[in-house]
Amino acid sequence: MTPYDRLKALGITLPEPVAPVAAFVPFVRTGNLVFVSGHIARKDGKPWRGQLGAELTPEEGRDAARNVAIDLMATLHAATGDLGRVTRIVKLLVLVNCTSVFTEQPKVADGASTLIREVFGAAGEHARSAVGVAQLPLGSCVEIELIAEVRDGA
Amino acid sequence: MTPYDRLKALGITLPEPVAPVAAFVPFVRTGNLVFVSGHIARKDGKPWRGQLGAELTPEEGRDAARNVAIDLMATLHAATGDLGRVTRIVKLLVLVNCTSVFTEQPKVADGASTLIREVFGAAGEHARSAVGVAQLPLGSCVEIELIAEVRDGA
Amino acid sequence: MTPYDRLKALGITLPEPVAPVAAFVPFVRTGNLVFVSGHIARKDGKPWRGQLGAELTPEEGRDAARNVAIDLMATLHAATGDLGRVTRIVKLLVLVNCTSVFTEQPKVADGASTLIREVFGAAGEHARSAVGVAQLPLGSCVEIELIAEVRDGA
Repeated sequence: MTPYDRLKALGITLPEPVAPVAAFVPFVRTGNLVFVSGHIARKDGKPWRGQLGAELTPEEGRDAARNVAIDLMATLHAATGDLGRVTRIVKLLVLVNCTSVFTEQPKVADGASTLIREVFGAAGEHARSAVGVAQLPLGSCVEIELIAEVRDGA
Repeated sequence: MTPYDRLKALGITLPEPVAPVAAFVPFVRTGNLVFVSGHIARKDGKPWRGQLGAELTPEEGRDAARNVAIDLMATLHAATGDLGRVTRIVKLLVLVNCTSVFTEQPKVADGASTLIREVFGAAGEHARSAVGVAQLPLGSCVEIELIAEVRDGA
Repeated sequence: MTPYDRLKALGITLPEPVAPVAAFVPFVRTGNLVFVSGHIARKDGKPWRGQLGAELTPEEGRDAARNVAIDLMATLHAATGDLGRVTRIVKLLVLVNCTSVFTEQPKVADGASTLIREVFGAAGEHARSAVGVAQLPLGSCVEIELIAEVRDGA
């Protein structure tokens, strides 16, 4: 089972990678690490706006984080040419746009973490930090950055 | 003097590593780097809740950050088998749960930084970012993630 | 054209590196990576205070981020002895001190990203995350941490 097989089994088609909205690039490789820029949550191709604890429920936040994970994998596919060359998802930093009383960041972040483990198997077991922030670019509800380890051939 | 000698001199016993509350792992090693997941502050085994600038004083925040550093070292011990194999603490990201007017994040973060330098000596001199955030998992007052450089044998 | 030539053409003189205000060091090198600590925005040598969406405009935030980039380059110069040994700016994490309704973090962050690309050329193309946070050390409006890849000789 390759990551693409698992994506297919999950009914997920990777989109075209999202172009950054500003003066940066979607990823940089250094040695065997790929640093992927923060990706914001999208729904139907537009920023998925709103704050957790106000306009959005934890379940919506979890779905938004899952969407971000799909976009992150699209960028990783562009970075490697083959997701099979990803030897480990090293770390996620999950930024949750929320009110000052919302404390379910782990539940939101699990939307991304669970999907990544499903797609990459053992290579998808990652370190993570989840945090509640005041606001995010374009009003998006979730933003995630990722570090992956890749094979030399990638 | 090993890190364990210094911990003993400080009267600190490393606890069992804390299991993540969600779908991630406590650390990932890649090459000579160990990426440690964000650890939240605990007191008597429970999340140390509250916001700096509201329920908690800077001194309490500093103590909470020190507690996080102890838990981070417990995880590093689990990651390496021997803290003596840690050749450098590379970077801390210190997330302080605070109001929008609290600006003493460096004082809070020093609770962790100072202890890490006491325990690791020169290898404990680290880069750092401290930031005030809207809220943290389980309502914890401080969360810290860490990158460490380790020896090949680790 | 070296990075110093480009800085000169831009009329920028690198300042003395800023000493950390607390118990950490300005950078740590591990392998071919340099992790640079979070640097806060300064104006005339003092913290550039204020929140985006309240006291400061997006244009002021962009200028503040540009100032941070200058200080980051001063620290990179101290870390490498020669900015020509920087083979790639890998990633920026841009923390914007803002209200809960301010969503122009990318515009603010571009103040740093654009200057870094001007100075380093292709080596300055970097990954990035921009995020709105509740508050920053000393009340500063912007804080940025950076990862750079450097040559073996650096």
